[in-house]
Amino acid sequence: MTNSGNCYKPRLLLAKLGIPFLHVETGSGPAGTTSAEFLARNPNGRVPLLQLADGRVLAESNAMLLHLAEGTRFLPADAYNRALAYQWLFFEQYSHEPYVAVRRALLTMPHRAADATPERLAATLIGGNKALAVMQEQLARTPFFAGDEISVADIALYAYTHDAGAGGFDLGSYPAIGAWLRRVEADPGHVPMDWTG
Amino acid sequence: MTNSGNCYKPRLLLAKLGIPFLHVETGSGPAGTTSAEFLARNPNGRVPLLQLADGRVLAESNAMLLHLAEGTRFLPADAYNRALAYQWLFFEQYSHEPYVAVRRALLTMPHRAADATPERLAATLIGGNKALAVMQEQLARTPFFAGDEISVADIALYAYTHDAGAGGFDLGSYPAIGAWLRRVEADPGHVPMDWTG
Repeated sequence: MTNSGNCYKPRLLLAKLGIPFLHVETGSGPAGTTSAEFLARNPNGRVPLLQLADGRVLAESNAMLLHLAEGTRFLPADAYNRALAYQWLFFEQYSHEPYVAVRRALLTMPHRAADATPERLAATLIGGNKALAVMQEQLARTPFFAGDEISVADIALYAYTHDAGAGGFDLGSYPAIGAWLRRVEADPGHVPMDWTG
Repeated sequence: MTNSGNCYKPRLLLAKLGIPFLHVETGSGPAGTTSAEFLARNPNGRVPLLQLADGRVLAESNAMLLHLAEGTRFLPADAYNRALAYQWLFFEQYSHEPYVAVRRALLTMPHRAADATPERLAATLIGGNKALAVMQEQLARTPFFAGDEISVADIALYAYTHDAGAGGFDLGSYPAIGAWLRRVEADPGHVPMDWTG
């Protein structure tokens, strides 16, 4: 799904690594992620799904990042910095995506409009701003999440943070995040979210 | 927090690896995870928090597992099996813990009782059973999540699955999960959830 930040993550890393791939747009619902054919390949019924050259498949966007990054500059060579990259990948999926990404979906995707209750919008606003504040605190201390160099953690957190405004989040309140977004975009091989290879 | 599955994960792996550690019980609220002292060490205000021998800290239970498992039998040597271990770690945090663990908390922890609305209990029951069905499907095909051998993925998923009954989930409906729980428990060095070193 081109418009999904989770799907953007592996595209962005593949672009940076210069690895060619074929993008297959997949919708939600019975013609897409809940079709029998798709569920046979990913029983959890979610995109993205990465099919490797040998035909085997891998689910979970952040698992794809770790797999693709092995042996590249996107996985820190130092064990502690690598552990911090792991830490921020799990932060992204547990403390960031369910608020920052979900609020954007509630506000912009027609098939999610029915879920956009005042309570849900309020809860995702609070959770999202909490995650952004944690990011701001880290980025006031280090240029990237796992230290001095870009890593998979930055790819993962960039995907939904760069479009957090669409979820009603005011990135102007988080200046270190704004400066970090520009650093990620200045890293060689950057592509925008609508690029599909 | 002894009773937290997320905190159990690193304890269980440390026990299996024979690495000594000091358990420091930490409560929620202003005397615990929201104290200024704790937030200075983990701005995201969550346990577990692993302090390494050199004083540096690491958050996120599944990041701890990956860090501690490097070079051990709990991180698969094959790149694809390792990628599957990553996949199931992210599945655990995104598709399993927010339902299986949260419903257990809603039903058993007094400070969560106010959140235990009928809507929340219904939603977590649906989400949890969906996650258990995905696990059942995998475990009907392979003895452990990343293949033939135990890995960090099994440690992570064991933590809350083994006590899913406390969240009102009927594990009797998932026979492959029951058999897998016994396999994890038979692996050398197993300790129960209330073991703190």
